Amino acid sequence: MIKVVVNISLKFGVLDPQGKAVNHALHTMGFDSIKSVRVGKQIVLDMQDDTDENILKNVTLMCESLLANTVIEDYTIEIVR
Amino acid sequence: MIKVVVNISLKFGVLDPQGKAVNHALHTMGFDSIKSVRVGKQIVLDMQDDTDENILKNVTLMCESLLANTVIEDYTIEIVR
Repeated sequence: MIKVVVNISLKFGVLDPQGKAVNHALHTMGFDSIKSVRVGKQIVLDMQDDTDENILKNVTLMCESLLANTVIEDYTIEIVR
Repeated sequence: MIKVVVNISLKFGVLDPQGKAVNHALHTMGFDSIKSVRVGKQIVLDMQDDTDENILKNVTLMCESLLANTVIEDYTIEIVR
């Protein structure tokens, strides 16, 4: 078994209302050092071990077809050995 | 300005229906190498630079009071220099 971490974030320039809300809430609570907040997803997959190449190929396919909305989201894939 | 990445994940043992749904969907699509999926949040903060100690103290306070539900969620804080 191997752990693969997929981080999905909104592309630069795409409005992030959830991030804006968190930013506003933090300022209301007195955390004035915050300039901006972006909220994304982190998906952790437990999967059968394979070569790095195969894992990367498969997880990229998963991201493109299900996990990420590639119109507005970017993703990164990290294999944790 | 400095970037701080906060990863928030459900604690071990807490049911993750979203992860289960993603897992099921991936299997339906033929990705049989997946054993389990956990879905968490990644919050990226842009904030004023300070000492690592101060940043960590402030962001921990943010996590405890707003960002994470510490009853069911764990968080990690990473300062990206």
